[in-house]
Amino acid sequence: MPDLTPPSAPQGPQGPQGSQGPIRLRSPAHNALRPAATARITGGFWAARRHTNASVSIPQGPARLEQAGNLANLRAAAQGAGAFTGDFPFQDSDVHKWLEAASWQLADEPGPQGLAAEVERLVSLVAAAQDPDGYLQTYYQVARPDRRWSELDWGHELYCAGHLIQAAVAHHRTTGRRELLDVAVRFAAHIDSLFGPDTTSEGAAKKHGICGHPEIETALVELYRETGERRFLDLAGHLTDRRGHGLLAQGIDRARDPGPAYWQDHLPLRKAPTVTGHAVRQLYLLAGAADLTMETGDATLREALERLWHSMAGTKTYLTGGVGARHEGEAFGEPFELPPDRAYAETCAAIASVQWSWRMALLTGETRYSDLVERTLYNGFLSGVALDGDRWLYVNPLQVRDDHEIRTGDQAPRRTPWFSCACCPPNVMRLLASLPHYVASGDADGLQLHQYATGSYATDTGGAVTVGTDYPWKGRVTVTVDAAPADRDWTLSLRIPSWCAEFTVAAPDRQDRTEADGGWLRIRRRWLPGERVVLDLALDVRLTEPDPRVDAVRGCLAIERGPLVYCLESADQPVGLRLDAVALITDARTVAEHRPDLLGGVTVVTTTGRRRSDGTPAPLTAVPYYAWAHRDEGAMRVWIPRS
Amino acid sequence: MPDLTPPSAPQGPQGPQGSQGPIRLRSPAHNALRPAATARITGGFWAARRHTNASVSIPQGPARLEQAGNLANLRAAAQGAGAFTGDFPFQDSDVHKWLEAASWQLADEPGPQGLAAEVERLVSLVAAAQDPDGYLQTYYQVARPDRRWSELDWGHELYCAGHLIQAAVAHHRTTGRRELLDVAVRFAAHIDSLFGPDTTSEGAAKKHGICGHPEIETALVELYRETGERRFLDLAGHLTDRRGHGLLAQGIDRARDPGPAYWQDHLPLRKAPTVTGHAVRQLYLLAGAADLTMETGDATLREALERLWHSMAGTKTYLTGGVGARHEGEAFGEPFELPPDRAYAETCAAIASVQWSWRMALLTGETRYSDLVERTLYNGFLSGVALDGDRWLYVNPLQVRDDHEIRTGDQAPRRTPWFSCACCPPNVMRLLASLPHYVASGDADGLQLHQYATGSYATDTGGAVTVGTDYPWKGRVTVTVDAAPADRDWTLSLRIPSWCAEFTVAAPDRQDRTEADGGWLRIRRRWLPGERVVLDLALDVRLTEPDPRVDAVRGCLAIERGPLVYCLESADQPVGLRLDAVALITDARTVAEHRPDLLGGVTVVTTTGRRRSDGTPAPLTAVPYYAWAHRDEGAMRVWIPRS
Repeated sequence: MPDLTPPSAPQGPQGPQGSQGPIRLRSPAHNALRPAATARITGGFWAARRHTNASVSIPQGPARLEQAGNLANLRAAAQGAGAFTGDFPFQDSDVHKWLEAASWQLADEPGPQGLAAEVERLVSLVAAAQDPDGYLQTYYQVARPDRRWSELDWGHELYCAGHLIQAAVAHHRTTGRRELLDVAVRFAAHIDSLFGPDTTSEGAAKKHGICGHPEIETALVELYRETGERRFLDLAGHLTDRRGHGLLAQGIDRARDPGPAYWQDHLPLRKAPTVTGHAVRQLYLLAGAADLTMETGDATLREALERLWHSMAGTKTYLTGGVGARHEGEAFGEPFELPPDRAYAETCAAIASVQWSWRMALLTGETRYSDLVERTLYNGFLSGVALDGDRWLYVNPLQVRDDHEIRTGDQAPRRTPWFSCACCPPNVMRLLASLPHYVASGDADGLQLHQYATGSYATDTGGAVTVGTDYPWKGRVTVTVDAAPADRDWTLSLRIPSWCAEFTVAAPDRQDRTEADGGWLRIRRRWLPGERVVLDLALDVRLTEPDPRVDAVRGCLAIERGPLVYCLESADQPVGLRLDAVALITDARTVAEHRPDLLGGVTVVTTTGRRRSDGTPAPLTAVPYYAWAHRDEGAMRVWIPRS
Repeated sequence: MPDLTPPSAPQGPQGPQGSQGPIRLRSPAHNALRPAATARITGGFWAARRHTNASVSIPQGPARLEQAGNLANLRAAAQGAGAFTGDFPFQDSDVHKWLEAASWQLADEPGPQGLAAEVERLVSLVAAAQDPDGYLQTYYQVARPDRRWSELDWGHELYCAGHLIQAAVAHHRTTGRRELLDVAVRFAAHIDSLFGPDTTSEGAAKKHGICGHPEIETALVELYRETGERRFLDLAGHLTDRRGHGLLAQGIDRARDPGPAYWQDHLPLRKAPTVTGHAVRQLYLLAGAADLTMETGDATLREALERLWHSMAGTKTYLTGGVGARHEGEAFGEPFELPPDRAYAETCAAIASVQWSWRMALLTGETRYSDLVERTLYNGFLSGVALDGDRWLYVNPLQVRDDHEIRTGDQAPRRTPWFSCACCPPNVMRLLASLPHYVASGDADGLQLHQYATGSYATDTGGAVTVGTDYPWKGRVTVTVDAAPADRDWTLSLRIPSWCAEFTVAAPDRQDRTEADGGWLRIRRRWLPGERVVLDLALDVRLTEPDPRVDAVRGCLAIERGPLVYCLESADQPVGLRLDAVALITDARTVAEHRPDLLGGVTVVTTTGRRRSDGTPAPLTAVPYYAWAHRDEGAMRVWIPRS
């Protein structure tokens, strides 16, 4: 029996760009920055959340998948017998996403004993389910073999293939094992023969098809990166450009939905003026288009990406970074249609937004993208997983009323062990498992810190730093340069978050060239190993006014501190105080106080409100939004009316 | 060939309570009031809209139904051959609702030549489609005979039967013809044998079933009223009380919807704390429960109805009277969840609200119900049909942004000739056709005017009045008593709308006992025929503040005048003014001016706003909300930020 214990150091095949996380660039020249070659989070805020992910969330995955029937579906496909279990044709993707998460995790903190063996067990189940021609989707293998490739709008076949490919790439990149990669390559080759730009006669009749749910595009670019096979890059480009010509059905509900915009099939991405339709579909598509651009340097695609990102970030993003305002169709709303109560803001959409924005950050080198990544990570993403790592939120509203009525179902404002549509939990797992790779980047001339997390980060050009910080609770970040070119100047770049009005920096020598460049604070000098930079970001409590065009929160303020958005929850207020009947006194004193005993340790903000009934003051206590919904089922609000 | 010209005077069988409209009470003793025996709108605002309904909307119905395939479905069922056309199993209900509308119309203003013949043609089509056992729903007859009565959650079989019954009652009540009534009685008897309290052995297995869409309950009570057959009243009660015990599926989408509350199967109506779930389903159920209470005097049902009505009117109703805030599930939202932009406020829900409230008005004699009827009729209902009577709105939002994106589909903010789900148009037709019967009521001691519409109204106890008014443009209402008991005092009651802060009344004699009683102005005296009362309601422009608990419109004001809610539309503002970037100057002068040339003749309100960009003033012109969406596709808003 082979030794399944993960190697203590990564042993995957190191390409020239070497990242052990997502996005191992093949064509760095098209990009301003490239991912860090190594990235480890070793302490602080995110290490704690990642530890829970590694020790609770990921290990409980296989049991959840067994209970929900996903693994039985794989066995049924392998045996050619049995019934399909689950509400959706894309049940397999939950398994694939879990495999991706566990694979990233194996490269880092292995988690409890046995995770590697569980990974190989599930890899074997997936491999055994594959048909001889490479096909693999249990819904069509087990339940509807007659309909294979005939329901592209709702069948999710290419979508599931995409998640399989991403899992396979992660598995290969972090463990060096080929079993799952071989499965993915076989399936991708089969898909290329049917849907690719150079189709065989078999595929000729189908070559116009695209999947109702984008996802395979970003995956195929990663498969190209991992294998070097150009045909996968070409297929990704082909599928991206085929979308937007009305090939899919007119929408999921002819009476009610916005038609082909639901799956972004209304306009080619290069011409689309704004993000629209189903948010996760839109954002996976855009992440894939960014991947394409990163490898090809396609200028018109880049222009569209920048335009669409500005449309999203400027008009369709919640304060929490959440996106996709509408329950109906899980979709982006109109510009500035951002209701706090009926915010959909699906956890998966926040993840997709982070994936896309990170690609844009590397492509352009601009800090705005990592500003949004930070806002999303600390708020609208992290709210999706409970502090115990074992319960989830599918939707992430910014307000729950005192008299909230519905507390059941996937979309209840209540943390839930699993969902009938379980897309979010393994998606959270894979982002947390790969999170170190979103912190830093490198270029020929230096290293850039996009996020502040205790750990060590190195570029593929010889730079390395160690970061120590109690961020986001404290604003001090200490960066030690562990390695830098001995013979020339080298630049350490620190992102100054857009929320930060004031900061100080102590560099090794007051003669150092320290300059602000966009959102970057750049320190350029000849470094000696061990030299340190201390950045202090002022963490004043902020009362944030909404854009006046966001009608739904007019006359309200939100409490923020550092990257954290705060909320009021009933549990923290005086007994009997209704959050629907209190207003913030805007000039009242605000106090930030760390409470190690509360919600895993949070800094709370206290201030004063006024009861609408009789005008009497009431103390108000706000907690970080990401930690909401852990106590009773009371009211919650991010946006608070001003007195 | 029989003479199909409608009789110039009603010839239907006159029961003791005699109304030629909906709700011919059999047990008036349980009710504070009873419908007028005769009711005719002969001039003014509603006469114009009803004329368009009679001369355009209703006559074009059969062609629309032919084009959409509804009539072909009936022929296919009759012939036992052919395909089913349409997206929904309830296509037949569009035909039934049209027949009901046309039947009410025939009692009143016959409309263009040939309407009566068209009615008889469609009646024959419906009758021919009926199976020998009484069954009639073409979807299950033509497309899915194997599934009859097996998909009660989504099949709409009892729902369609309900609309058939209502059409049959209207047809019989206004024309005296029995063809359709016989069809309905046969179907209802068949249903009673399967679902009734005393089921045959055939029905035993099915007797626990209820329909996913309430509607048959109110219809069965009317069938009881029309035929005197007690079993139909009992069946209505039985079906009402069976609901709320989780008999239906867990919701239409297990992953996402609120479960059985969608179809009000989560709690028995008698125990429900609030209106919830699909709005039309909820309101048809409540209208039926009100019908039951009106005939049985059931005290606990009445208590529940009053509680639920207060929950709706006080916490879940838009300023326009629209109800059902959510697109997702076409459902009521939480209390005070009333977004203006994503307001669903389906036209059908407004109609159902009027139907229910009118029953409550008769049951209780309280004016609050007719206050809401008035608000709904003039605003959230009337917006559903275009001024030309030939285009429709399915949803009735209170805001459309300048950069609104989606302009297609049933739910676009754009008047549309017909819908793939065409529930609303014939529903509008039937309410407008029967509208005179919502104006007045009677009791042993007098006549009550609930609405102000030029016309003549008589009780079944010998009272009769003629009303003349230019309402809602002018506040003067002249009521002439044409008949009243010669030998005793008799009371003319005039509803003083809750919006009205000031009024004067000129009664025939200053000694008359004129007293305010709740919202009623009661004038009690010995009347001589021809004596007149002149009521003057002050129609000042009002700037209405929202309830502070409605988060979505905080910091805004709405313009109202009389019963009309106003809105700003781009078309009436200075060129280039964006409605998203202007605020109302609250102390600016407002001017109301009648513009006979505009939108069929409307009183506009002009005032002044302030541009957010540079603070400069801008003239603003508001038009009645019901008339919106008749010019360009610009922005619209009811709630306007205050400067």
